[in-house]
Amino acid sequence: MQTPRLTVLGAGPGDPELLTLKGARVLSEADVILYDALANRALLGHARPEAVLVPVGKRRGMRSHSQDDINALIVDYARRYGHVVRLKGGDPFVFGRGREEMLYAEAHGLLTDYVPGISSAVAAVGAAGIPVTHRGLSEGFRVITATTATGELAGSIREAARDARGTTVILMGLGELPRIVQAFCEQGHADMPAAIIQNGTLPHARLVTGPVAELPARAAAAEIGAPAIIIIGEVTRLATPEKLALLPELYAAVA
Amino acid sequence: MQTPRLTVLGAGPGDPELLTLKGARVLSEADVILYDALANRALLGHARPEAVLVPVGKRRGMRSHSQDDINALIVDYARRYGHVVRLKGGDPFVFGRGREEMLYAEAHGLLTDYVPGISSAVAAVGAAGIPVTHRGLSEGFRVITATTATGELAGSIREAARDARGTTVILMGLGELPRIVQAFCEQGHADMPAAIIQNGTLPHARLVTGPVAELPARAAAAEIGAPAIIIIGEVTRLATPEKLALLPELYAAVA
Repeated sequence: MQTPRLTVLGAGPGDPELLTLKGARVLSEADVILYDALANRALLGHARPEAVLVPVGKRRGMRSHSQDDINALIVDYARRYGHVVRLKGGDPFVFGRGREEMLYAEAHGLLTDYVPGISSAVAAVGAAGIPVTHRGLSEGFRVITATTATGELAGSIREAARDARGTTVILMGLGELPRIVQAFCEQGHADMPAAIIQNGTLPHARLVTGPVAELPARAAAAEIGAPAIIIIGEVTRLATPEKLALLPELYAAVA
Repeated sequence: MQTPRLTVLGAGPGDPELLTLKGARVLSEADVILYDALANRALLGHARPEAVLVPVGKRRGMRSHSQDDINALIVDYARRYGHVVRLKGGDPFVFGRGREEMLYAEAHGLLTDYVPGISSAVAAVGAAGIPVTHRGLSEGFRVITATTATGELAGSIREAARDARGTTVILMGLGELPRIVQAFCEQGHADMPAAIIQNGTLPHARLVTGPVAELPARAAAAEIGAPAIIIIGEVTRLATPEKLALLPELYAAVA
């Protein structure tokens, strides 16, 4: 058996062809794959037939495993089988707790590695025609999440609303949409263009656009559900909803 | 000949194995590849032998082609050869002008597509052990660049210095390091932990860490050069300079 080790691996935004070449190689070398709900299960097709595949998803508040459970599973599986790959949606370091898991594993004697993934913050948004930066429309972008560990609306949301010169990308924020919209409206940005995209890069992607103040009504009318990304800023004017119909071609067979 | 079309394609942060599966496929289908200086030339190994390969790099202020030239080349090559792939370092929509090129191409009758790439803003930083987000250390991150079209220090730099609760990632900022440091020091962040990484994800990656105020001296002592990324925030405490020696294993042969 090889030395116990952990690789935290980014699955990308949804389309299984947006895995990296290195990601495909690492999956094909794994002894154990612990995978999140947000990672596309088609990616497990890269695994060896004898690999152990373990779902450890958390989704919509339903926790099948706590973070402590997951940490313990990583160490336990690595000691028993060798190389554990922790497959996470997007990138492991973008609200993925990937570094936490690495630090825990290192403290328990495992070797660790990080293999990045395409973050939905840029790519799911981009697949809808919206560039996070665009000359003349955005000086940069920020990526934040809606709630803190204590359930409060994150201070970074209010900060983003105060300084809306760049693009704001909010992950895991759909449940807090009314409070997010209120924060931007209070700073005078009720008319700022905005968008919500669900399942970006996947064939069943859905997009709504409109001024900030109208997002809740439009999202409800379109029955947008989680996981979804909220984007606020002038760049959302460049959205191409008509192109989403082309997305099935993204769904080419995984190598 | 197929319909004239443009695909803007992200090359990723440097390591050629961090190209996506879709990116490798698109390169293998291209009739023409127009590639930037920041895209790893090893990626051209995915091209068909008969593909036309055209460097259009801009680097360190030396412009081999203006943006207008590049736009014209895209349309001209697509009309003559069919499918033009525009290969850009990182992601085409993260300060890459990818959407601009698509809009120009669409206005001239080309079909367009976007294939995301791994952004160095997350991955080159992460390869040095620094997660852009980490529970308890960062509520999110912002990605900005240092100068505006007029040469001024970007307002977003000053904004980031005022609100340093999240991670600040500054691309293409090394030439403005003294003014960036000054902006953070003026807001009382002279002691905030920070880092600079050059060539992240490549075998010759280099990293310096230290409090904001000491970055210029440390970068000079280590002879850090462009392209480099400046990261400011508590998450830089998690950097693992000792692991950079492991990076050559990232350099596995491109499929």
